[in-house]
Amino acid sequence: MRDVYVIGIGITSFGRLEYPLSEIAAYPAMMAMKDCGIRKIDHLYVSNMGGGRLNHQTGLASAVVDTLSLTPAGAELIENGPASGASAIKTGFMAVASGMHDVVLVTGAERMREVNNLEATEFVATLTHPLAEYIYGVTLPSLAGMFTRLYMDKYGVTERHLAMVAVKNQDNALLNPFAHLHEKITIEAILDSPEAMTNNPYVSEPLRFFDMCPVSDGGACVILASKEVAQKVNRPKVRLAGVGQATDTHAVHERENPTDLLAVRRAAELSMKMAGVKPSDVSVAELHDAFTILEIVESEEVGFFKKGEGHKALERGDTRIGGKIPINTSGGLKGKGHPVGATGIGQAHEIVTQLRGEAKKRQVKDAKVGFTCNFGGFGNNVVCLTFIREDGP
Amino acid sequence: MRDVYVIGIGITSFGRLEYPLSEIAAYPAMMAMKDCGIRKIDHLYVSNMGGGRLNHQTGLASAVVDTLSLTPAGAELIENGPASGASAIKTGFMAVASGMHDVVLVTGAERMREVNNLEATEFVATLTHPLAEYIYGVTLPSLAGMFTRLYMDKYGVTERHLAMVAVKNQDNALLNPFAHLHEKITIEAILDSPEAMTNNPYVSEPLRFFDMCPVSDGGACVILASKEVAQKVNRPKVRLAGVGQATDTHAVHERENPTDLLAVRRAAELSMKMAGVKPSDVSVAELHDAFTILEIVESEEVGFFKKGEGHKALERGDTRIGGKIPINTSGGLKGKGHPVGATGIGQAHEIVTQLRGEAKKRQVKDAKVGFTCNFGGFGNNVVCLTFIREDGP
Repeated sequence: MRDVYVIGIGITSFGRLEYPLSEIAAYPAMMAMKDCGIRKIDHLYVSNMGGGRLNHQTGLASAVVDTLSLTPAGAELIENGPASGASAIKTGFMAVASGMHDVVLVTGAERMREVNNLEATEFVATLTHPLAEYIYGVTLPSLAGMFTRLYMDKYGVTERHLAMVAVKNQDNALLNPFAHLHEKITIEAILDSPEAMTNNPYVSEPLRFFDMCPVSDGGACVILASKEVAQKVNRPKVRLAGVGQATDTHAVHERENPTDLLAVRRAAELSMKMAGVKPSDVSVAELHDAFTILEIVESEEVGFFKKGEGHKALERGDTRIGGKIPINTSGGLKGKGHPVGATGIGQAHEIVTQLRGEAKKRQVKDAKVGFTCNFGGFGNNVVCLTFIREDGP
Repeated sequence: MRDVYVIGIGITSFGRLEYPLSEIAAYPAMMAMKDCGIRKIDHLYVSNMGGGRLNHQTGLASAVVDTLSLTPAGAELIENGPASGASAIKTGFMAVASGMHDVVLVTGAERMREVNNLEATEFVATLTHPLAEYIYGVTLPSLAGMFTRLYMDKYGVTERHLAMVAVKNQDNALLNPFAHLHEKITIEAILDSPEAMTNNPYVSEPLRFFDMCPVSDGGACVILASKEVAQKVNRPKVRLAGVGQATDTHAVHERENPTDLLAVRRAAELSMKMAGVKPSDVSVAELHDAFTILEIVESEEVGFFKKGEGHKALERGDTRIGGKIPINTSGGLKGKGHPVGATGIGQAHEIVTQLRGEAKKRQVKDAKVGFTCNFGGFGNNVVCLTFIREDGP
């Protein structure tokens, strides 16, 4: 297989965007083309989950090609629930690695705020098991609530740990101009004060309002290319060195140990193995914190900390900017937002920004190896990516 | 790039299927695994267009992995409108060609008859241009009607030619046990008799009822593998030798010449060039006849006949079984049916069946090179595949 490089990146602000879905996908693509100075695109992948249901749009990939005037380049839409973005990047990786295409544009978009929050939750619930979960009214927050309770009982995680994730990631989001939430929160306000139950009510006990990512619109793009093309681009060299993917049972209750996220573990292993790195080599990571508990658990499953000890690392400040392994410097899904089709590409955008040394106030010093974990379903289809800065200091 | 073989195939009956979407995708996959005797699948691609909108199901790819007990294999859903199937096959081709995976299962499914025909037409219309077509009420039949009128004026195609396509393809469908329509029709009954206007009313003038494909449920699967794996499978060797794709403007009225289907022309050229064959080498083809006019026009654009002369070849019987280049021996979309996510894979299923010499009463003699054209949007994203029988007589 040929080596694959990320030569260009682009992103919209995450939040509420009053543009057609095809333009939310096209805008970051234009930024990414400008970033690398390359406009000759051989093929496009567009990641999106809700176009048909929420926005009355199918054939989105063709619409994006047309919006960007990139005909006759071919294009497909890639969907893998909330992991659609990393799945599209993985597919683009293969297109370049195989020699089929030299320059592949991978853009993701979602426009979810067109519907209200209840409808958005119902929409996301369509990715649960159609016969064993969905028809009984299961939603993602309800699965996450039950999962969190088990994790608390087994490993000693508390509501305070969850709140610490929320505070850290919203603090990081304050340093990211593209983030959805620019709101300073404190443990005092969301947990300890007499007003905490009003400020931060239970949504799916023990998860509260501030344990949930927001419902966001947004788009993000990466351009992947062969080494030959990358050498002509005058930008820091970031190689997409590892792609790993794994599935788990669709119905969560069928898992042998419901507090294990085996697909995260396996996808991370495959990704790091392909890249030739160990968890301790990673300088900066974006983990899929749709719920605060997930950042803690994923930080264990991908190998940064031992199983059941992620919350202790959090207490020590290991995952803060300046800590041992900064996690979700972008703000994560919790602070930056979670436009599902764009999320995995947004994670890659942050990692490339960090590895290039362009993250300004949230820059991780000497970042050389970056890692993303994009979590589909309730951990039933996970894609992990490993990036390496090649020409850094 | 490595060579890629089709080692297993499977298909459901097309028509009305009262099963969950995930099972319509899983059933042909089980048939395909049985066909080749291989159950170790490295990765899956699932092609589908309407799951989120019509069936309240997203994350379909993960559901199919689980239904087939293929965890921890990764999976993605691929959507490219009505060309989703061939797009998924193209993606699977890259996965094997790149060396990323050795055995890739590509299954497609659609369950459209859960809604009524008007809703189905509205759903398919969501792939037209969101700002220049869809919001003004454009549908695929309306675009096809206007296109047909221009083609008639320019090249002398008549309603009789269209009816000849319908009769030929429904005749072929009578020989295909998996076809949706098993109904003998005649030119007399649908065009010449006094009852013709009742039997076959105008739907989108000059297109009539029998010029339209039916709305179908259905699923189809191919398993792709490396040469090493294919050599261990005791089935006739069919190589996926060429994949070609091209896009055209999204809005049909923006095309320089609205009677040209440039994406079909280019995708066919790319596919045949990669396979090292010419149009005259092709023994049997499946072309995307969602409307009868499209079979005639595609037979010209892919290079079987000169532009504007497809209807003359039809008159001569060139495209019948036994003719110079039999087209849509399966019945095509017109006779076999058009479950959009499965259609392109259904085309490949027919071609592999023909190249293996297993098409029974509809067998094309000495078929060695097969070709499919899967048409997305109104020709805005087209994927063509070329298959070669390697160990035939």
